[in-house]
Amino acid sequence: MDTYQHQFRVYYEDTDAGGVVYHANYLNFFERTRTEWLRSKGLEQSRMSQKENIVLAISKMDIDFIRPARLDDLLTVTCQPTSHKRASMIIHQTMYCGDQLLAKATVKVASLKADAFRPTPFPQHLIQELLF
Amino acid sequence: MDTYQHQFRVYYEDTDAGGVVYHANYLNFFERTRTEWLRSKGLEQSRMSQKENIVLAISKMDIDFIRPARLDDLLTVTCQPTSHKRASMIIHQTMYCGDQLLAKATVKVASLKADAFRPTPFPQHLIQELLF
Amino acid sequence: MDTYQHQFRVYYEDTDAGGVVYHANYLNFFERTRTEWLRSKGLEQSRMSQKENIVLAISKMDIDFIRPARLDDLLTVTCQPTSHKRASMIIHQTMYCGDQLLAKATVKVASLKADAFRPTPFPQHLIQELLF
Amino acid sequence: MDTYQHQFRVYYEDTDAGGVVYHANYLNFFERTRTEWLRSKGLEQSRMSQKENIVLAISKMDIDFIRPARLDDLLTVTCQPTSHKRASMIIHQTMYCGDQLLAKATVKVASLKADAFRPTPFPQHLIQELLF
Repeated sequence: MDTYQHQFRVYYEDTDAGGVVYHANYLNFFERTRTEWLRSKGLEQSRMSQKENIVLAISKMDIDFIRPARLDDLLTVTCQPTSHKRASMIIHQTMYCGDQLLAKATVKVASLKADAFRPTPFPQHLIQELLF
Repeated sequence: MDTYQHQFRVYYEDTDAGGVVYHANYLNFFERTRTEWLRSKGLEQSRMSQKENIVLAISKMDIDFIRPARLDDLLTVTCQPTSHKRASMIIHQTMYCGDQLLAKATVKVASLKADAFRPTPFPQHLIQELLF
Repeated sequence: MDTYQHQFRVYYEDTDAGGVVYHANYLNFFERTRTEWLRSKGLEQSRMSQKENIVLAISKMDIDFIRPARLDDLLTVTCQPTSHKRASMIIHQTMYCGDQLLAKATVKVASLKADAFRPTPFPQHLIQELLF
Repeated sequence: MDTYQHQFRVYYEDTDAGGVVYHANYLNFFERTRTEWLRSKGLEQSRMSQKENIVLAISKMDIDFIRPARLDDLLTVTCQPTSHKRASMIIHQTMYCGDQLLAKATVKVASLKADAFRPTPFPQHLIQELLF
């Protein structure tokens, strides 16, 4: 299975007074990429929340910040699921600018009931669309 | 009636690569001050939304950015309602660092039903608590 | 002269607990569109800052928030300069989702020296590239 | 040595359409707490950057998101350095709302030259003020 990737531009809003992308904002680029990966599979989180009462929540995230991203950089961010259980999955992500690795992350995503924020198994169709 | 004011510190997250507070983030400081002004009157927006089905939404905002705010600045932000109708009010706000005026804003706040985002009159108790 | 436009997707980071795009984040979409308009003219703000010591700063902004933008919306944002002086210009911007107008803004952009945050005339090439 | 702690209120800007604090924004609360911990020791990052050419950058961060934070919550965030090398230190942080643990993080902070973003040893006075 090919690794999903998406490109994003760095804007002023993403940067901080250090002159580089503010560290917490790297998580936005990772999140946008997971969202676009879901969308590429026909899954929209607004519909999942409203029609299936499912939200995908981050329960754990390990991030390595390797090189700074800067204003006007064009970032390529990847998204690759590596394993899953009934109500959680592990996703590996990387961020590149050109061929330079800027950051990488391991993300544990949990399936929760949208109205109660309690774990619930992934819908079967979601597992099939995402992982096989 | 005295003008309400609240102080906030500028953190890295508020700044951009220009070395100053990113312009859209001034609106965060204005919003936090309106929220703290409501709280000082005994009103919490999470409760208003859940118990009274009311959200206060910004329908118009005119902002003058006069001088830049910078990392580690201690900002004093004011909040003063100046007029109201059945389902909207006008609030004047200023932002200072020490005695330097950094920004000022005129904000039109609308009362909306939380579940439908349609205008609805302010609850009577809210008008009394806020404006008299 | 045609009006410049750019499309952006709404992600979770843009929304708030009201279920819609947080009001201050509309300014991000307007800013990204100004940035992409500059880029479409061959102008990058990171280079302008480093090579010409120029930053474009917002000195005044009037915004009408007309309808809420929501998670997963695809927004079309426009950017149209309408007048300019030696060190400032006025830009009109709109935000649409499909054919629904969500917001509009009038933005006064000032030319500042990047290292001093003081007004300085626009470089001549910038005026020519942007406005003629 | 006592663990440093600071309190922060959750505002609309911190939340997302899921109704809870957006996951990346937890990192803002952790960062603000590190900043206030430094300030409590007499260290301001804006001065460190300008006068000593030092920025403290996050090189690695492991976060557990345990329970959601919500609008109007009053968060207590802690900051405890646990070890250090010449140009990096490890900090443990927790976030509570009342006595409920919401999140915890292990943060690796690197000392970088502000103008080059390259590792440089911590200034000796900083190590003494922070860790002893």
